[in-house]
Amino acid sequence: MNNEKQLLKFLTFQQLHKRPYTFVLPNAWDVISAKIFEKNGFPAIATTSAGIAMSLGYKDGEKIPFDEMLEVVKRIINSVDVPVSVDLESGYGVSTNEVVNNAKQIILAGGIGINLEDGTGDLDSPVLDMSLQVERISEIRLLSKSLKAPLFINARTDLYWLNIGDLDLRLQEAIIRGKAYQKAGADCIFIPGLYDIESIKKVRQEISCPINLLSEPNLPSINTLSQVGIERISTGSAPFRATATLLQRITEDILYDNNFQRLMNDNMSYNAITELIETPK
Amino acid sequence: MNNEKQLLKFLTFQQLHKRPYTFVLPNAWDVISAKIFEKNGFPAIATTSAGIAMSLGYKDGEKIPFDEMLEVVKRIINSVDVPVSVDLESGYGVSTNEVVNNAKQIILAGGIGINLEDGTGDLDSPVLDMSLQVERISEIRLLSKSLKAPLFINARTDLYWLNIGDLDLRLQEAIIRGKAYQKAGADCIFIPGLYDIESIKKVRQEISCPINLLSEPNLPSINTLSQVGIERISTGSAPFRATATLLQRITEDILYDNNFQRLMNDNMSYNAITELIETPK
Repeated sequence: MNNEKQLLKFLTFQQLHKRPYTFVLPNAWDVISAKIFEKNGFPAIATTSAGIAMSLGYKDGEKIPFDEMLEVVKRIINSVDVPVSVDLESGYGVSTNEVVNNAKQIILAGGIGINLEDGTGDLDSPVLDMSLQVERISEIRLLSKSLKAPLFINARTDLYWLNIGDLDLRLQEAIIRGKAYQKAGADCIFIPGLYDIESIKKVRQEISCPINLLSEPNLPSINTLSQVGIERISTGSAPFRATATLLQRITEDILYDNNFQRLMNDNMSYNAITELIETPK
Repeated sequence: MNNEKQLLKFLTFQQLHKRPYTFVLPNAWDVISAKIFEKNGFPAIATTSAGIAMSLGYKDGEKIPFDEMLEVVKRIINSVDVPVSVDLESGYGVSTNEVVNNAKQIILAGGIGINLEDGTGDLDSPVLDMSLQVERISEIRLLSKSLKAPLFINARTDLYWLNIGDLDLRLQEAIIRGKAYQKAGADCIFIPGLYDIESIKKVRQEISCPINLLSEPNLPSINTLSQVGIERISTGSAPFRATATLLQRITEDILYDNNFQRLMNDNMSYNAITELIETPK
């Protein structure tokens, strides 16, 4: 960990949430995706738990051992100069202590931000008790202070993502949780699955810290969200899924139509992609 | 290593080279690419050294430590039921012994085939002395016999790939090497960079074992190559580069045009991609 370098990256990242328009944070899952996002101009990148897990053969939802995920995260952080925020899912731990220790590993690896979600993956009890999630966020905030390593905590509530409760109650509860997580030390509130413009406006009115939404077909346009005052959109696993979909179409071209149309469709040359890797960081 | 299972996979793979039309072998670099190729109907897959290396942040050309490459190869082999042929580049070793030992690791990991190239990566001496490459192929053939584990050896000559010598001499030398490699125990001769139809016909006349070409924009169509009697086309790193190119275009949409057009272009859903991983092998 290099505290000075990490502080500069943190400040760059934090600043992105203070601009008068929405910024998009793309989620990488390996070094080449991270390199492409950086090389083409994204000022920061995040990781996608789904992409990292599935590219290694695991289902999403903390099925991959934390250390294997951390290894990929380290590769990504070490391959780019831009700030990297890490998808920590629910924290890969049962106790607060375990979760805090995992957040510490991310800081030590050079990550300047985390996503921490309150979804549990448990069907009987799909979201964590709010007070427990507040405790986790507070403890991670304290850890960051004690290490003198700033950490941008993006607290995610999964009420929309998991379709929990009827829509009015869901909106109220998401706002209550957002406020509580902010008070506990979160820098930004992430509500994936929220796309109704009226509900987005309501959340904006009620929550004073930056708000993060997830790109999806139903999400209002970037311009609309800029006007409403939303700071950040995450792509989530969409870029990962887009590449998987392209592979599926390339396969169909070959096996059903006997051609290489999409495979050869003006693609980056071997030399061009090698240059991406050669670029010193 | 499960000899019986491996033998069945080997026979399936070998049989693909005996059909009256050209088959396409796609090259995977991680589990999800392998899963998509398998799920959509490819009867066998290979690996791409470039894709594996660059997705982990290394340049192609044996810059990645052999063990790290092997780890990815194992993940791929263990994630699919179809036969997997492994890109061993020049063998990741200086001595014949090292190269043979690395081929052994591939067999033990469950790989039923390898690509072994005569390019050296050394600018002063870009291709290996033919007799040395013949020795390596012979020794790997002996190893396969001694382990009672069949191995489909795809011997690659890099004269075209590296643009060595004038075109007439190059053609002659490629044929000489192809014949020598076949005699040493190779099952198939791979000549990436060869796309001129007259030269392809000449190689076909001269070499009696299966021939492998590399997909590229100049390559004649699959139908034409079927008529000429070419057994196999490898995609090489093209699918990997195609996904990288798509990420570049998605980035341009977002950063320059402020939209998610290609990111949201009828892509595989989160549930659909999760199902790919859940599919038991």
